[in-house]
Amino acid sequence: MKVVGLTKASTDFVDMEIKQPVPENHDLLVKIKAISINPVDTKQREATKLTGDEVRILGWDAVGEVVEIGSEVTLFKTGQEVYFAGDVTRPGAYAEFTLIDERLVGLKPKHLSLEEAAAMPLTTITVWEALFDRLGIVEADKGKSILIINGAGGVGSIATQLAANIGLNVIATASREETIEWTKKHGANHIINHRENLTKQLKELGFEQGVDFILCLHNTNAHWDDMQEAIRPQGKICSIVELAKPVKMSLLKDKSATFSYEFMFTRSKYNTEDKIKQHEILTEAANMLDKGDLTSTLNKVLSPLNAKTVEEAHKIISSGKMIGKLVVKGFE
Amino acid sequence: MKVVGLTKASTDFVDMEIKQPVPENHDLLVKIKAISINPVDTKQREATKLTGDEVRILGWDAVGEVVEIGSEVTLFKTGQEVYFAGDVTRPGAYAEFTLIDERLVGLKPKHLSLEEAAAMPLTTITVWEALFDRLGIVEADKGKSILIINGAGGVGSIATQLAANIGLNVIATASREETIEWTKKHGANHIINHRENLTKQLKELGFEQGVDFILCLHNTNAHWDDMQEAIRPQGKICSIVELAKPVKMSLLKDKSATFSYEFMFTRSKYNTEDKIKQHEILTEAANMLDKGDLTSTLNKVLSPLNAKTVEEAHKIISSGKMIGKLVVKGFE
Repeated sequence: MKVVGLTKASTDFVDMEIKQPVPENHDLLVKIKAISINPVDTKQREATKLTGDEVRILGWDAVGEVVEIGSEVTLFKTGQEVYFAGDVTRPGAYAEFTLIDERLVGLKPKHLSLEEAAAMPLTTITVWEALFDRLGIVEADKGKSILIINGAGGVGSIATQLAANIGLNVIATASREETIEWTKKHGANHIINHRENLTKQLKELGFEQGVDFILCLHNTNAHWDDMQEAIRPQGKICSIVELAKPVKMSLLKDKSATFSYEFMFTRSKYNTEDKIKQHEILTEAANMLDKGDLTSTLNKVLSPLNAKTVEEAHKIISSGKMIGKLVVKGFE
Repeated sequence: MKVVGLTKASTDFVDMEIKQPVPENHDLLVKIKAISINPVDTKQREATKLTGDEVRILGWDAVGEVVEIGSEVTLFKTGQEVYFAGDVTRPGAYAEFTLIDERLVGLKPKHLSLEEAAAMPLTTITVWEALFDRLGIVEADKGKSILIINGAGGVGSIATQLAANIGLNVIATASREETIEWTKKHGANHIINHRENLTKQLKELGFEQGVDFILCLHNTNAHWDDMQEAIRPQGKICSIVELAKPVKMSLLKDKSATFSYEFMFTRSKYNTEDKIKQHEILTEAANMLDKGDLTSTLNKVLSPLNAKTVEEAHKIISSGKMIGKLVVKGFE
C-alpha cells in the first residue's frame, strides 16, 4: 500500500510502498479517505528517532471505510464509513490503509462530507475529555464562566461551540480580525486578547472574582501567572499544552484551585479500562454534528495525500496561524 | 472576656481581657468549651504582623454553646452546643467567646464528649472537601485506590477512616511503630513508609500502574516527583500543603492527570456562594460520628485554656510528631 513515511535517511516525508497490515482482535482495517493534520503531528515528527530501516507513519485524525475486521470486533462491520483519532503509539493514517482499535472509532456523521468529518475526531475528543472528564463540568454548571485561551484554533473552535452549547458563559481569546470573527461565529459570548493581560480584561468585563473554568490551548507557561490570578476560588484550569518549564503553584493554594492536563492519547497509550469512552464520544458527537448542534471546524483542504502535500500541511500547522482545521484528501 | 492573644510587643502568647463581641446578621456568639490546635495555628502565628495596639486571636477549631444570635440567623438558637472550624480572616477561638457565621457551623455530635468533638471540625471539613470537591470522588469510584501520605496526622487519621468507609482501597503512609498501629486502626488496607520511594513500594503491593488518587498531607515538594510517578493515567492528586518551590509538571501531561489544592478556609475567606456546604458537611459528619461510622481522632488533651497551655500545644504541633488530634479545654 502507499504511505507517506519518515525514514532515518531524510528529515523529509517520503512517498513509499509498504506491506498492507492485517487486522487482529479488536482492530479494524480502514481504507483512508481523508485525514486532518494537528499540532501533535508536527510534535511527533520532531520527536521521531529512527534506526536502520524503520519507517514511521504519522497521522491520527481520519475518515475512511472499514474493509476488514479482526476476530473480536463487535461494534463495526465492513463497508461502514468511520472516523477516529487513533493511537499515537501505532502507525498512523498517512497511508492507504490503517489499523485502529474499534473502541476508539465512531460511525462517520452521515450529513458531513468526508473532509468535514475528517476535521473533527481529535479535537472533539480533546474538548469532550477536557470539559467533562478533566474539568468535571456537569449540568449544574450551566451559567458558569469559562475562559478559552486560543479560541480560533482547531481545538478552540470546537471548545467554543461545545461550551456555548451546554450553557456556559464563554470568554474566548482571539487577536486578529479574522480570528475574532471566526470565534464569534462559534458562539463565544465575549472575546478578549491573549496578547494582553487576561485578568485585567476579565475584570473589565465584570468577572471581578475571575472565571470558574479555564481551558488553555496555547503556551501554558506564558499564561501561567495570569491564569492563577484569573481563576476563581475553587475554580479549575485545564491545559492541553505541556508546562515545559517549572512553575510556581503557590497562588492556587489559597483558592483551592485545580489544574489538569488533557492529552487525548492517554486512554489509548495506557490502554485504560475506560478507553471505549472515545467510541462513545465520537458516537454522540456524530449525532450532534448531524443535527447541526455542532458544526465542522474545517477551514482548508489540500489534495491529494502525498509527501509534498503533507509537507505543506505541516508548514501551515507549524506557523500557529491556522484558523479551524486543515484536511488532506486521500491518495489519488 | 478572657482571651489568649498575640500582640506587637511579644512573640509569646499573652493572657488578656478584651471586650466581648456582639453578633450581627448571620453570626452566632459562641461560648468556647474546647478548642483543637492545628498546623494552621502555628503557620498563622508565624505570618502574623501587628502594628500599634492590635491584638490577634488565633484558633479555628472549636466546640461551644450558642449564647446569642444575629438578626438573620435561621439555622441555630441559643443554648445549642455547636462545633465549627471557622474563618481564618476573623478573630479565632482562643477566647471565652467568639463570633462565627452560622453557615460554617454544625450541631455538636451528641454522643461525643466536648473534647472528642472539638478534635473534629477542621480536619473533617478538609478531608470531605479534598475527597469529594477536589478529587471528585463519587459512589462509582468504590474499589479504586487512594494513597494517603501521612496517614497518622490529624487530617490523615480522618482521611483514612472516611476513604475506607466509602469503599476505597486505602494505602496510608506511616513510619513509626505507633503511627502504623494508629493508622491500621483507622482502616488502612496497606501501610507504606513515606521515608522511602512510594512508587516502588506501591509496585511491590501490586499497584503496577500506580494509584487512582493521592492525598498529600505532608511536604508536597519533597514527594512531588514520586507522586507524579505513582499516579495512574487519568488519576488525581490533592494536597493540603503548599508547593513553596516551583515544580516540574511535565510527567502529569502524558497521563492527563490532575492536581488540586485543598484549603478549608477558601469558602469563608472568599465568601463563596456555596459556603453553607461547610454547615452541611459538619451536620453529616455529626451523624456519622454519632452512629460510630467515624470515630474521633482525639489523642491528647491539655487544660485549661491559657497562654501557657497554648504555647505548649503549639510546641507539640510544630514537632510534626503529633498522632491524631490535640485539644485544649476552655477557660477555667
